[in-house]
Amino acid sequence: MSTPVVTLLTDYGVESEFAGICRGVIQRVCPGATVIDITHGIARHAIRDGALVLRNSLPFMPAGVHVAVVDPQVGSERRSVAIRCGDGRILVGPDNGLLSLAAEASGGALEAIDISRSEHRLEPVSATFHGRDVFAPVAAALACGVPLAEAGDPLDASELAVLELPRPRREGDQLIAHALMIDVYGNVTLDVRHDDLPGTGLALGHSLEVSARGLTHPATFTGTFADVPAGDLLVYEDASRMLALAVNRGDAATTLALAPDSEVRLAPL
Amino acid sequence: MSTPVVTLLTDYGVESEFAGICRGVIQRVCPGATVIDITHGIARHAIRDGALVLRNSLPFMPAGVHVAVVDPQVGSERRSVAIRCGDGRILVGPDNGLLSLAAEASGGALEAIDISRSEHRLEPVSATFHGRDVFAPVAAALACGVPLAEAGDPLDASELAVLELPRPRREGDQLIAHALMIDVYGNVTLDVRHDDLPGTGLALGHSLEVSARGLTHPATFTGTFADVPAGDLLVYEDASRMLALAVNRGDAATTLALAPDSEVRLAPL
Amino acid sequence: MSTPVVTLLTDYGVESEFAGICRGVIQRVCPGATVIDITHGIARHAIRDGALVLRNSLPFMPAGVHVAVVDPQVGSERRSVAIRCGDGRILVGPDNGLLSLAAEASGGALEAIDISRSEHRLEPVSATFHGRDVFAPVAAALACGVPLAEAGDPLDASELAVLELPRPRREGDQLIAHALMIDVYGNVTLDVRHDDLPGTGLALGHSLEVSARGLTHPATFTGTFADVPAGDLLVYEDASRMLALAVNRGDAATTLALAPDSEVRLAPL
Repeated sequence: MSTPVVTLLTDYGVESEFAGICRGVIQRVCPGATVIDITHGIARHAIRDGALVLRNSLPFMPAGVHVAVVDPQVGSERRSVAIRCGDGRILVGPDNGLLSLAAEASGGALEAIDISRSEHRLEPVSATFHGRDVFAPVAAALACGVPLAEAGDPLDASELAVLELPRPRREGDQLIAHALMIDVYGNVTLDVRHDDLPGTGLALGHSLEVSARGLTHPATFTGTFADVPAGDLLVYEDASRMLALAVNRGDAATTLALAPDSEVRLAPL
Repeated sequence: MSTPVVTLLTDYGVESEFAGICRGVIQRVCPGATVIDITHGIARHAIRDGALVLRNSLPFMPAGVHVAVVDPQVGSERRSVAIRCGDGRILVGPDNGLLSLAAEASGGALEAIDISRSEHRLEPVSATFHGRDVFAPVAAALACGVPLAEAGDPLDASELAVLELPRPRREGDQLIAHALMIDVYGNVTLDVRHDDLPGTGLALGHSLEVSARGLTHPATFTGTFADVPAGDLLVYEDASRMLALAVNRGDAATTLALAPDSEVRLAPL
Repeated sequence: MSTPVVTLLTDYGVESEFAGICRGVIQRVCPGATVIDITHGIARHAIRDGALVLRNSLPFMPAGVHVAVVDPQVGSERRSVAIRCGDGRILVGPDNGLLSLAAEASGGALEAIDISRSEHRLEPVSATFHGRDVFAPVAAALACGVPLAEAGDPLDASELAVLELPRPRREGDQLIAHALMIDVYGNVTLDVRHDDLPGTGLALGHSLEVSARGLTHPATFTGTFADVPAGDLLVYEDASRMLALAVNRGDAATTLALAPDSEVRLAPL
């Protein structure tokens, strides 16, 4: 049998011991597992950022058990779940929408269980650290071969929380988009995929105007940052194949005063 | 034989290459070992924080060799040690009290050696990087099966440095506690365990007053943050089963102007 | 066969998912590989810092495939390369000088290939994330046994980019050195190795004057920080065996207003 794989994505931060304790729990339950830290730097309580990064990262991960924890309601009545997807991956985390984009992109949720009272959790379960007490040990048990049905209580997959994303809309040959996520460099991912472009006047290599918060800025739709002078605004397809805004050697979010969900109008010239 | 396990806890920071170099040294000496980073984000030179985090984390780690490095006296005459504990774990690090809480919680120090001149260290030993030159290679040798007695010079375990923690005291039904550790969110761990509560008037679900630095604040002893409104002070049992102070969606250390060792009076209402 | 080893050194930062995605790609291509993160905290686009840290770290890593990514020209025409060194290590990264110091210290570049169009890359190759699409998958293929010649197009090793470092010069018994790298604590690595000292008047245990930016400061050439009072300037051999400046419990780079390449005069007393 191949080495079991568990991946971790959390908002625990890179300084604290919380992620390290989860790694330890996994190795206690499933010795020798390959544990891959996708990131622990999701902004605190930013469920949508976590959901997007998880969806965008999973295609590059070996198939396995994929734990995600961004959990502002820890200690409340929100469910803890494990989900088997159409492609065989198993997702583990709080049922707050965090897993829903990844489940959808992995063939959909075929089967789900509520692991809040799983016999594989650690007792006593603390009120604040379900990563350690619920998600990590149950994920490790699943990675080491425990059948999904034995790790929790059956749950109708249609009851799982679903995260709604904003969607862009067309106005003539323009596109009214929204800021989805802003990275540490101020690059802004929009809610626009390649499929949204045909029919608009927006095309690689062409100039456009970007309007946000009442101001209009000239920009270029280009392949890479180096195609425009330093300080210039560009629109590009980012590494997750979403349209994004950046300023070459600058900070687009600050330049355009964008926050998550800000409306951004893209008008071809 | 099961895979050797080495855990790492340091104040090297998450940005530098120091932890990475220790990981490399371990894999050179003991190829295929499972290396678990507990954390490298201990505040620089904060021996007590490191000692507490190590003690609180070890029960969640597989048994193995556990390296800790918070070492303000590196290059001076302080000893480097390896300790076999009552539960079989081996602790490796500087003999400055950093290991003492974990040793005590792991069944006590049964056997100790001075590894300053271990034949398994890397030569030449630098003056500033004993993690690389002493702790990592000796720990890896021990993890791969070198007997403790062959990894250094015998040392009387009663000579090991011991870290003294403040202790709370009772005044009637009140508790005079101390700030032990402050996390990145401003949550404050106190020197109070569950066992210290019986006999005080402090009980889950009840109101209390918290006095510190001449000011008194109302608070609730509750199970989780979400039990009080945003901005309110709460007392709760944290994930390491210590009593702690927090402000829901706020920063208790700043609100109460607390620093490590600050005295905090808990008075039931 | 021993477990394949892949090490990673990048400027991706510790917060983002970029390093985690590379770890996933490696485990997909070469399951069970030992992946060692040297660091992801190289300052953004700081090729020289990355080249120095890679050179200084490799001797402590198991032999394997060593990926480095500090890549300000990603998406332009700079080559992606893999290099077999005299000691058997394989280096993978952009051909911008980042690999050159490590190659030189590892027995020189014996054989090189251009991996920009390697059949082992992931398609489509994005314009901005060659770590994921080129370096990680090709490195993993090489770690799992693909022969170098089958992983890319042949390249004359003499055409590889070479990073030039400043060199110190003698003036009588003084040494005119340069700041090479400044760490997070403000310690300043100079371009001076042990071999540069004989013939100067500089010797361990002696006093000297350090002049930079028009000001002269007294200092001591010492073995470790604790040998001088807090606040005093010291010159010492750092853990990579380069001469360095520090202020005990202070910040030498700020105290002396040094930036990379600043000239520093060391005059024995």
